[in-house]
Amino acid sequence: MRPVAVVGFGQIPVQKQQRATLRQMGAAVVQTALSSAGADPARVDALYACSMLSDELQGQKHVAALIADEAGLAGVEALEARAATAGGAAALRMAWLSVACGAADLAVAVGVEKMSDGIATPVLAKALDAQREVPDGATLISQNALLMALYREQYAVPVDGLAHFAVNAHANARHNPNALFQTKVITPADVLASRLISPPIRLLDCSPICDGAAAVLLAPLDAASRYTNHVVPVHASTVATDRFRIADRADPLALQAARRSAQAALVQAHLTLQDIDLFEVHDAFSIMACLLLEAVGFAAPGAGWRLAAEGGIRPDGRIPIATRGGLKARGHPIGATALYQVCEIVQQLTGQAGGNQLHNPHVGMMQSVGGAGVTVLTHIFGV
Amino acid sequence: MRPVAVVGFGQIPVQKQQRATLRQMGAAVVQTALSSAGADPARVDALYACSMLSDELQGQKHVAALIADEAGLAGVEALEARAATAGGAAALRMAWLSVACGAADLAVAVGVEKMSDGIATPVLAKALDAQREVPDGATLISQNALLMALYREQYAVPVDGLAHFAVNAHANARHNPNALFQTKVITPADVLASRLISPPIRLLDCSPICDGAAAVLLAPLDAASRYTNHVVPVHASTVATDRFRIADRADPLALQAARRSAQAALVQAHLTLQDIDLFEVHDAFSIMACLLLEAVGFAAPGAGWRLAAEGGIRPDGRIPIATRGGLKARGHPIGATALYQVCEIVQQLTGQAGGNQLHNPHVGMMQSVGGAGVTVLTHIFGV
Repeated sequence: MRPVAVVGFGQIPVQKQQRATLRQMGAAVVQTALSSAGADPARVDALYACSMLSDELQGQKHVAALIADEAGLAGVEALEARAATAGGAAALRMAWLSVACGAADLAVAVGVEKMSDGIATPVLAKALDAQREVPDGATLISQNALLMALYREQYAVPVDGLAHFAVNAHANARHNPNALFQTKVITPADVLASRLISPPIRLLDCSPICDGAAAVLLAPLDAASRYTNHVVPVHASTVATDRFRIADRADPLALQAARRSAQAALVQAHLTLQDIDLFEVHDAFSIMACLLLEAVGFAAPGAGWRLAAEGGIRPDGRIPIATRGGLKARGHPIGATALYQVCEIVQQLTGQAGGNQLHNPHVGMMQSVGGAGVTVLTHIFGV
Repeated sequence: MRPVAVVGFGQIPVQKQQRATLRQMGAAVVQTALSSAGADPARVDALYACSMLSDELQGQKHVAALIADEAGLAGVEALEARAATAGGAAALRMAWLSVACGAADLAVAVGVEKMSDGIATPVLAKALDAQREVPDGATLISQNALLMALYREQYAVPVDGLAHFAVNAHANARHNPNALFQTKVITPADVLASRLISPPIRLLDCSPICDGAAAVLLAPLDAASRYTNHVVPVHASTVATDRFRIADRADPLALQAARRSAQAALVQAHLTLQDIDLFEVHDAFSIMACLLLEAVGFAAPGAGWRLAAEGGIRPDGRIPIATRGGLKARGHPIGATALYQVCEIVQQLTGQAGGNQLHNPHVGMMQSVGGAGVTVLTHIFGV
């Protein structure tokens, strides 16, 4: 297995009601990723794509070949990867495997999602068990509400205890030109005053429905300097799963897939948790950000909310998260989300994060969660 | 990149109206593949799954983690791979990459499809361009009809010229206990007398709507003999794409993705076409089998139908195809189809093909086609 690096990336601003089509959005970020690396399109060996909702919302399957064609790459290997709401990270992992293996010398991972073409929520619920969860009325929102209620009860969390995740995310999005909410600074009181969605989850506990696309270009580490002065090695790529249904898990608040995937990634990277300078977390809901911090080990069980409330997740805190807005405020265009996370980590590690720039970070971790904690991919990047 | 081998496989009979659920079907073949190799489930590192239609027909995404859980593998890496109607081969390729790369020492590729839960045809059409083909009324059937009409006109093919593909497939299915049509022997006259579906395609030119699941277990070649006496090395795994729309192709009858993918596979395997003893072809429609034979080089352009009519595709012919019934008569449960093809090639190469056993074959090739020739994966196996 040879070392792999990110050598280019492309992203478009996350927005509502994007006018461009799915294929145009995908092709645009692929072309930006290629041009950012000065890479000849004819040298691309493989393209791995993800869209979670295109089957239903655009009536479109087969998006990898479609994007490849639109980007002028027809002929190339093009396949799709999926893992429910973590699909973008699955595409990243496929591209990584392909380069690590030697099957490709230049591979693109691209994610694209247009959630505004229709009603996304019931389609998102297909990440749950269609026979044993959905018939009971479960959705991804209700499952996260269940976890949030359990968490608040078990650890006697104050009513505004989890609000600081959204506050931090919105504060960080201010300096990200690709974020959906660039100007919406909020307070814990705003979170508590926002509309109840699925008790106890309120509107500002949720990442938004939105459209977006992002892509990253991977090459073998030993060839990476041909493409860019901003080489960012991929130190680890791992996946783990949990029991599919929350009801089958011994402790629903202990996200075993997140824990296992993170531990395996640290071993693969030859690093410890103390080496991680930033954590792009899957904050689709405040409770998910909190539970991931605990599962990975940045906070003890029940202490994740306190880490947030005490400022430990802010850019100057112990473990900065959602440094450019996260899923909450940059936005969560599902299939594209993990690729946005990579772009943001690359920007942080190469001093390109503008008004969000952390002080000299060396190692960034990201996690991507499929379903209610079922499938978790962890990637670690370092310079 | 280390050599990889198939060390186990599992398949269930293809049928209509399968009573088992998607997850049960998937778990059953995974468990059979593991037990056929005497493999400890706890040693499985990765599971790659494919279902093309489950989003719509079962309201179920996230099938890799679902099948892993049902098979008792919760915890394992589990991701989905897709490439429209070639998706099973994409799962195979992901598992192959994972083992070749060293990321996994034991990986399962599993495909499952229940097409009888609803109306599959419009869902299958999502493999086409939803904005530029489907609005004009195109379906996968109509696109294949277009190719068949073009072919018959361009090469002045007699009206029964393509009928021999279905005749051969049904004859071969007789001895396959997993085939949908085990007793339905047909003649060219039967094909011509069958119902017109989308002119000039008739019912017996089409593979059937059906349910099925199949899985294969991959391990590094140097560890393969621990699992089985029937080790079948994977000599090549390649993917290529074509322009997405038939209208954008210079010559619609020259399947460039099939040609490129096959040529790359032969190079990767250090073999020539003369070394191939059997070809499990993607005979979703008679015309597709014919065009693939020509694209790969088993017949000259326009001569594929003649190869079939003269018996060259039969078990005793120059290049046996669909040796256990193919998509036409074994059945084409989309996401599972490529995995059935692997099972059948393994059976042929290890003398387990029963009444269909070819005489001492050493090398088998398979192709899987996504959409109307857009994405083609080629795999070569040899002993």
